[in-house]
Amino acid sequence: MLLSKGRVEAFSDGVFAVAITLLVLDLKVAGPGHGPLARQLADEWPSYFAYLVSFMVIGIIWVNHHTLLARFATIDRTLLFLNLLLLLFITVIPFPTALLAQYLRAGGRDSHVAAALYGLVMEGMSLSFGAMFAWGGRHPELLHEPPEPAVHRRALMQFGVGSVLYLFTIALAFVSAPGALIAHFAIAVFYIVDRTTVDGANEPEDSPGMPAT
Amino acid sequence: MLLSKGRVEAFSDGVFAVAITLLVLDLKVAGPGHGPLARQLADEWPSYFAYLVSFMVIGIIWVNHHTLLARFATIDRTLLFLNLLLLLFITVIPFPTALLAQYLRAGGRDSHVAAALYGLVMEGMSLSFGAMFAWGGRHPELLHEPPEPAVHRRALMQFGVGSVLYLFTIALAFVSAPGALIAHFAIAVFYIVDRTTVDGANEPEDSPGMPAT
Amino acid sequence: MLLSKGRVEAFSDGVFAVAITLLVLDLKVAGPGHGPLARQLADEWPSYFAYLVSFMVIGIIWVNHHTLLARFATIDRTLLFLNLLLLLFITVIPFPTALLAQYLRAGGRDSHVAAALYGLVMEGMSLSFGAMFAWGGRHPELLHEPPEPAVHRRALMQFGVGSVLYLFTIALAFVSAPGALIAHFAIAVFYIVDRTTVDGANEPEDSPGMPAT
Amino acid sequence: MLLSKGRVEAFSDGVFAVAITLLVLDLKVAGPGHGPLARQLADEWPSYFAYLVSFMVIGIIWVNHHTLLARFATIDRTLLFLNLLLLLFITVIPFPTALLAQYLRAGGRDSHVAAALYGLVMEGMSLSFGAMFAWGGRHPELLHEPPEPAVHRRALMQFGVGSVLYLFTIALAFVSAPGALIAHFAIAVFYIVDRTTVDGANEPEDSPGMPAT
Repeated sequence: MLLSKGRVEAFSDGVFAVAITLLVLDLKVAGPGHGPLARQLADEWPSYFAYLVSFMVIGIIWVNHHTLLARFATIDRTLLFLNLLLLLFITVIPFPTALLAQYLRAGGRDSHVAAALYGLVMEGMSLSFGAMFAWGGRHPELLHEPPEPAVHRRALMQFGVGSVLYLFTIALAFVSAPGALIAHFAIAVFYIVDRTTVDGANEPEDSPGMPAT
Repeated sequence: MLLSKGRVEAFSDGVFAVAITLLVLDLKVAGPGHGPLARQLADEWPSYFAYLVSFMVIGIIWVNHHTLLARFATIDRTLLFLNLLLLLFITVIPFPTALLAQYLRAGGRDSHVAAALYGLVMEGMSLSFGAMFAWGGRHPELLHEPPEPAVHRRALMQFGVGSVLYLFTIALAFVSAPGALIAHFAIAVFYIVDRTTVDGANEPEDSPGMPAT
Repeated sequence: MLLSKGRVEAFSDGVFAVAITLLVLDLKVAGPGHGPLARQLADEWPSYFAYLVSFMVIGIIWVNHHTLLARFATIDRTLLFLNLLLLLFITVIPFPTALLAQYLRAGGRDSHVAAALYGLVMEGMSLSFGAMFAWGGRHPELLHEPPEPAVHRRALMQFGVGSVLYLFTIALAFVSAPGALIAHFAIAVFYIVDRTTVDGANEPEDSPGMPAT
Repeated sequence: MLLSKGRVEAFSDGVFAVAITLLVLDLKVAGPGHGPLARQLADEWPSYFAYLVSFMVIGIIWVNHHTLLARFATIDRTLLFLNLLLLLFITVIPFPTALLAQYLRAGGRDSHVAAALYGLVMEGMSLSFGAMFAWGGRHPELLHEPPEPAVHRRALMQFGVGSVLYLFTIALAFVSAPGALIAHFAIAVFYIVDRTTVDGANEPEDSPGMPAT
């Protein structure tokens, strides 16, 4: 069964857009009667930082998802369900983000648990993304054009590094929860600055005459 | 009145995407001051399981919806409102999911009611999806090409089996609420593994030269 | 300034989809410890009924919006802001829906206020939709083809009737809040059953060769 | 790496649509048992006003975003991340909107802080939008056609004025929180009425034969 790439992208974009926007529901203060607002806001810094990191992560995955799907000419059923698995982790992200924001201030053992859970969700997301990528590598007939072996190998290695880094953040979580969150931030910054991710993907979808969506 | 398939798909994709992402709002813990986080998380397993099952159900229906609409060349007004009926059940899903997660731990009579309600919503969703499918069967002039009788009959039978299975989960709910949720999980896994659902649907919408959306 | 119809539709579809799905957040029960679940659910019937009516209203407006925009070849700036005005009322709907559900059970004067507010939002939505329709009538250069005068007049009259009916529900609210909600339900059913709304709109957007979105 | 404009628009439209609709979650009353509903509603006027202003702001930015992207033929990676920065501010808007609504009634020092934060988010949004605009000006190879210098200069000046106005609202916030909100309202009205914003942007995307999305 061949499936329309357009609707897979539209649905995925919708999920990404809702998940990234729902993060805002974690931003709140206790409200009037709980001390000066400026103090309440200052105390909530873990919320803002967790918000920012999760926003960056979802944004980056969206960019990579976009680039990855652009390489596919056809979506088969396995890829479709791998994509749903990825989206499962994406939709879950607001939950560990809220937990981490809540428990980062409290500190102690619970903050380690929250940070580890955060890392675990990122690891799951990274692995399901990697699985989609690998599936394309093994089924070149689904792609617009077979990937160049060197490019493909380098991209696979990048994913491997990403997955190992996320494992590292889980270990780090049990040492320092803020440290783990900072590590997630650093990984996100690295992915934004690094321009080479999945970069054999310039097929001419933007050329005039072909519908862009 | 003929209606644009593109906007029906876009709107439906939006509803599916929002509904599947809103499920995350049911994931929460009592927060700091209510015991160790690890314990709180462990106690919340019904939430995660209900989340996973509902995510799978919405994901599967989205795939089937996608495949079903691909067969239609034109959407008539009846189909449009059948589609709205289906979306009504989709948007409702987070509610019985939350109920089931809440009451599964409490156990007793209330957990049976919650599980039965969950099954009832799934039954409604299944029947409205079946109604869309049957409408296409009776109005071949709306389709790209008339379905092969054998394929159509088999697909109809599958829907019939699905509807009966959901009825069965409602009965099961009154015996065991966790059992009913496990049954829903099993049905979802079956639909994911089984590759033949609505499978005459390979019209060439992915071919180059035709807009993908 | 001419604006792309595609993005106006995509954005509007998104808003419709989110608003119609957010309605589910109003469905909830007090939870374990507040009496038998079956009783709690039974007591919440105004929530379900209000949910159903608001879902139908948003669904119907989406269909009409869809049909209306299909007639336009170009969206000018005025139409764009009229569309935003319509979306303002659409996004607000979950609020009076929640109020009505909350206060319908309480009864008394407050239920009248809630029902009147509900009617007021519907009136605003109806008028802004009517304004978009009227703008198209006065600017035939924006349309694919000028409307037939008879068809246009009949459609305008239908909108007029709708706006008067919503005014009537506001008056009725002060007599009986449940009566007002039933009236909204009846109006929605009427619009679903009646097949003639905005019905000169069969331009060939579904024909092969033209992108559907 | 060249990226598909279609998916950037689809994702952005999704985020705009979710953010503008999530604003409704800030509209609520204490509910039955907290005094007459009419009184509760009347007391909540800051919520409605803040809702309206934020709705207008997001709506206007969506229109401008739409117009700006229409000028681009290609989205490069920098623009993509500038767009994510803009979306970050868009998704945050419901938070300061809720704060402002909550604290406007309380008055005093906290209302000034809330209003200043609101202005700060608007300033951030304005600057990131300006950065996208400026990036296009410096990279004409990304545009469908180079902007006319006079038009471009006037538009840049308008953005400059907007950014200065938002700075002014932050200063005003410390004098009068309601005054600051009224200033935001006035700025929004000005942008709606003024027809010249980013107005060299009439490329023929609505012409038949080119996909609208």
